[in-house]
Amino acid sequence: MESKQQINIGGMQHHPESHPIEGVELLHVFDKMKAVKAFIFDIDGVLTNNAVLVTESGELLRTMNIRDGQAIKWARQSNYPICIITGGRSEGTKKRLLGLGIEAYYANITDKTTAFKSFLQLSGLLASEICYMGDDLPDLPVLRSVGLSCCPADAVPEIKSSCDFISEYNGGEGCVRDILERVMKLQATWPNY
Amino acid sequence: MESKQQINIGGMQHHPESHPIEGVELLHVFDKMKAVKAFIFDIDGVLTNNAVLVTESGELLRTMNIRDGQAIKWARQSNYPICIITGGRSEGTKKRLLGLGIEAYYANITDKTTAFKSFLQLSGLLASEICYMGDDLPDLPVLRSVGLSCCPADAVPEIKSSCDFISEYNGGEGCVRDILERVMKLQATWPNY
Amino acid sequence: MESKQQINIGGMQHHPESHPIEGVELLHVFDKMKAVKAFIFDIDGVLTNNAVLVTESGELLRTMNIRDGQAIKWARQSNYPICIITGGRSEGTKKRLLGLGIEAYYANITDKTTAFKSFLQLSGLLASEICYMGDDLPDLPVLRSVGLSCCPADAVPEIKSSCDFISEYNGGEGCVRDILERVMKLQATWPNY
Amino acid sequence: MESKQQINIGGMQHHPESHPIEGVELLHVFDKMKAVKAFIFDIDGVLTNNAVLVTESGELLRTMNIRDGQAIKWARQSNYPICIITGGRSEGTKKRLLGLGIEAYYANITDKTTAFKSFLQLSGLLASEICYMGDDLPDLPVLRSVGLSCCPADAVPEIKSSCDFISEYNGGEGCVRDILERVMKLQATWPNY
Repeated sequence: MESKQQINIGGMQHHPESHPIEGVELLHVFDKMKAVKAFIFDIDGVLTNNAVLVTESGELLRTMNIRDGQAIKWARQSNYPICIITGGRSEGTKKRLLGLGIEAYYANITDKTTAFKSFLQLSGLLASEICYMGDDLPDLPVLRSVGLSCCPADAVPEIKSSCDFISEYNGGEGCVRDILERVMKLQATWPNY
Repeated sequence: MESKQQINIGGMQHHPESHPIEGVELLHVFDKMKAVKAFIFDIDGVLTNNAVLVTESGELLRTMNIRDGQAIKWARQSNYPICIITGGRSEGTKKRLLGLGIEAYYANITDKTTAFKSFLQLSGLLASEICYMGDDLPDLPVLRSVGLSCCPADAVPEIKSSCDFISEYNGGEGCVRDILERVMKLQATWPNY
Repeated sequence: MESKQQINIGGMQHHPESHPIEGVELLHVFDKMKAVKAFIFDIDGVLTNNAVLVTESGELLRTMNIRDGQAIKWARQSNYPICIITGGRSEGTKKRLLGLGIEAYYANITDKTTAFKSFLQLSGLLASEICYMGDDLPDLPVLRSVGLSCCPADAVPEIKSSCDFISEYNGGEGCVRDILERVMKLQATWPNY
Repeated sequence: MESKQQINIGGMQHHPESHPIEGVELLHVFDKMKAVKAFIFDIDGVLTNNAVLVTESGELLRTMNIRDGQAIKWARQSNYPICIITGGRSEGTKKRLLGLGIEAYYANITDKTTAFKSFLQLSGLLASEICYMGDDLPDLPVLRSVGLSCCPADAVPEIKSSCDFISEYNGGEGCVRDILERVMKLQATWPNY
């Protein structure tokens, strides 16, 4: 496995001490962003802020972000495959995400690596062409395998120290839009208004 | 199209560097506020904080602000036309906003310019008499056309750099009350207690 | 009407410039707190954070605070009358507050002064024995009449400049517990554990 | 009753002035953490942020944290008994917590000491082997009795001054995961990825 460089472009955490030749490494992350052909997102802590509203019947309602959803729509219009791998099994988030155009949705997953390999086969893509964003320990095995590993600003420390890119936004507060916008702007697929 | 000056009165972002003759420009924004005869608001990110609570059946519930609602009521009592143009199609927010006295409500809109022109015809007003508040890229075309363009503190950068006035309040946290209160106080239509 | 001194004990806003003889004024607010025999609370922005969750059927769900509720229970166990005067008409908040032991509940009120006078008659108390907490313009007339006028940290400026006491807590985040705890500790009615 | 030392490892509040021989006391808290065999949690303000969403029918919906839930699952997989003692009676939080593997659940409790003693009998454990986390006055009697007393960063002052360990996380924002992770890492039972 290749060594990972950590960087936060325009964010709060730059870790300059671990970047002796910063220009080179910036290029490195930009190169990784340019190579991305598909995105995989965790739900809790990435597309949500880790909170669940518990109803009296025991349902768990999540709060999602409109700007994340808008960016997912734009990414789908530009034909990027987008995949969800989640340990949860919420019907509501599934409906919303399929409604935004997401086609690959792995729910109730305990071993995320198996779902990840299934998506690679399904899409015909290489691991080096995948951007994955996760926030907690169960995301680590997949994060270590992909081309561009990302996390929200409030991911757990083990995740943050393993990622290529740490968004300046927390889970549920725009971190998904952040990475989609950065990659799509670099690839000139972000919409103009 | 006229050039835009950006200002934030009493807020966090003053951009003094771009205001060589501040007195003149303050007057300019005050003049624009004095010319306002009607208000148009986006919903997500303006009347809400961009969050949606996702129920298991796939409904998206929004969180709105009581002080925004109170200000809308007062504006309607002073006979300002208020219009909503939203990409969403929530029945709940529609009921609440119609209940506050709003009469023009354009939902499920992808091209906001068309809805904007329809409202101009309906109201018989000029674009220069309209105050519009939006927070994301789809709001840009209309924002560029109106007399007074506004956004919440947490609008996306492209919006903030195109607006006459940036509220110090975030979406869903009082930005709508803020602009209504400023305009109505200038026009001496804000209620006294 | 007597002149009002504004103070925030242990909070963020001390306004020392308006307190030339601070010791005297502290005593003044403490004296007012010692004279309190009953409490009146607004709901939105005081017992809530001004947010309403809008359901698809148009219901408005409020978020309330457990510690506020716990303090209301303790105040009722010590036999303080507690009254609600609200412009809203939520059945849910009414059930919760009556469940906590509140007996006087005025809902759907536009003129808060009339409800206030009704409560004075009902309770046989003087205006000078009432502690009122509100956050927005419609609360001003009653705030100006009571013995101890209070508001949350995020009340509108006109309210903050008219109050004897500004809590360091925002609406829905413990401002009600704050004033109940301060008054009851001064009157030695706060529970011991 | 033994005297309590207060410490916050890696958190915001270190109170060094009350720790003349810090090394000794650090060991003391680590020793207490090493002795823990079971966990007891309060719900409101610990597993939630003290907020309740009030529905029109009067139900109180709580917001819980996914990372707290994940840590509870891991603790149960390592066979730590986990007990809930709550003054509330929410069916939703009960279903969620039982679903995470919690077996001892005391609801609608006014005297927490009685429930605590019942759990000691049930589990056959000593009070010195229990870690308890609470946030408000009714938690004080049990907090004073257990081996390791803990609270969230936003507990009331009386609780914070009585605890061995103050988490740097607020209630509902990961304080439960924080204490579980610290104890389980010390006892080498935290999962590896």
